[in-house]
Amino acid sequence: MPKGIPETVPDDGLTTRQRRTLPITAVHTGPGKGKSTAAFGMALRAWNQGWPVGVFQFVKSAKWKVGEENALRVLGASGEGGTVAWHKMGEGWSWVQRSTEAEVSSEEAAKEGWEQVKRDLAAETYRFYVLDEFTYPMHWGWVDVDEVVAVLKDRPGSQHVVITGRYAKEPLTELADLVTEMTKVKHPMDAGRKGQRGIEW
Amino acid sequence: MPKGIPETVPDDGLTTRQRRTLPITAVHTGPGKGKSTAAFGMALRAWNQGWPVGVFQFVKSAKWKVGEENALRVLGASGEGGTVAWHKMGEGWSWVQRSTEAEVSSEEAAKEGWEQVKRDLAAETYRFYVLDEFTYPMHWGWVDVDEVVAVLKDRPGSQHVVITGRYAKEPLTELADLVTEMTKVKHPMDAGRKGQRGIEW
Repeated sequence: MPKGIPETVPDDGLTTRQRRTLPITAVHTGPGKGKSTAAFGMALRAWNQGWPVGVFQFVKSAKWKVGEENALRVLGASGEGGTVAWHKMGEGWSWVQRSTEAEVSSEEAAKEGWEQVKRDLAAETYRFYVLDEFTYPMHWGWVDVDEVVAVLKDRPGSQHVVITGRYAKEPLTELADLVTEMTKVKHPMDAGRKGQRGIEW
Repeated sequence: MPKGIPETVPDDGLTTRQRRTLPITAVHTGPGKGKSTAAFGMALRAWNQGWPVGVFQFVKSAKWKVGEENALRVLGASGEGGTVAWHKMGEGWSWVQRSTEAEVSSEEAAKEGWEQVKRDLAAETYRFYVLDEFTYPMHWGWVDVDEVVAVLKDRPGSQHVVITGRYAKEPLTELADLVTEMTKVKHPMDAGRKGQRGIEW
C-alpha cells in the first residue's frame, strides 16, 4: 500500500504533527464479515504503540470472539506493548456488583456499558477503544445516538474509538473519520457449511 | 452475532463434523480499509486454536503492518497458542540466499513467494495462511491465477488460506468459500488528514 498523499490540505490551522495525533473515530458496518475482526486487528497496532487498549463487547454471548480475546489478553500481559482490558456484557460487566439473584435486561446492561465508556473517555483510561457491536444498542434505541455523538465529539486528549456492527446510524457515520462497509459477497454458510473452529471463533 | 443456521444442507455425503474441518479459502477484496487487518484478526483465532500460522506479505514495503507483525510474533513466541512464521517479500524472502549485489525484480520476488507457498501447502507446514496482497501479483499477470486456483483446490489436509488485496480475479473468488468486499465509505485522508501512528501502521 503506497503512503497516502492527502488530496487536500485542510484549512484548520493545525500542523501536520498535530493532525497526526487527532483522535480517530472509525465505524465498521455493513452485512459482511470482518467488522469486529478488523477492529481487533487495529487493536494490534495500538498495542504495538504501547497504548492502553479497552474493549467493550456489547453482545450477550461473547463466545465467538474467544480467539481474539485470548490473543489480546496474552499481548496485554506480555509486557511488550500496551495493556489490554477486555469488558464483556455477556457475563455482566465486571465493574457492576450485583446479587446473584438479580436479573438485568440487555437494555440495562447496554446502558451500563455506555455509562462506563463515558467515564473512561472522561478519565482518558485508554488510548484505543473497541466498542464492539455497539451499533445495535443505538439501533434498538437503548442508547441515544445523539448523546454518543456529543460525547465522542467532546472527548478529551487523543483517544481513538472504533465502533462495529450493522445499521450504523447516520449521525454516527457523519461524525466518524473513517467508515468502512463490509459487504458479503459469498459465505460458506450459504452453501450449507457450518461455522468452523478457528475460522468463526 | 447469532449462531448461523445453514440455509441449505449440502448433498456432499459429508458429516457435519467433516464439514467443520473442511479447509476454508477466504478472499478480502475491494477498495476499502480492513482487508489485511481482518485477515490478521482471523490469524488470532487460528493462533488461539494452537495452529501454526504462516504469513506471506507480497508487498515491497512492509512497514505499515509492523504492529500486526510484532503482535503476532509475540503471540507465536508466547508458548500459549500456535507458532507464527512471518515472511516478507519487502526485504527479500528469508529463505532465498543471494549475494548482496544481486537485484531481484518484484515480479521474480513474487514468483519466489508463490513457489514457497506451494511447497508449504504440499508439506502442510501451516494450518492457517495469510497471503497478504497476493491479489496484485495475479492482477499484474506475474502469478497465474489458474495455477493458484488449481493448487488451492488440491491442497492436502485442512489448511485454511486467506488472500487479501484489490482486484481479486474471478477464478479465485469463484473458488473461495468466503469473499468479503471492503468498501470505502469515508476516509480521513479524503479530508486532508495524514496517516496516523497506531491507526495506519
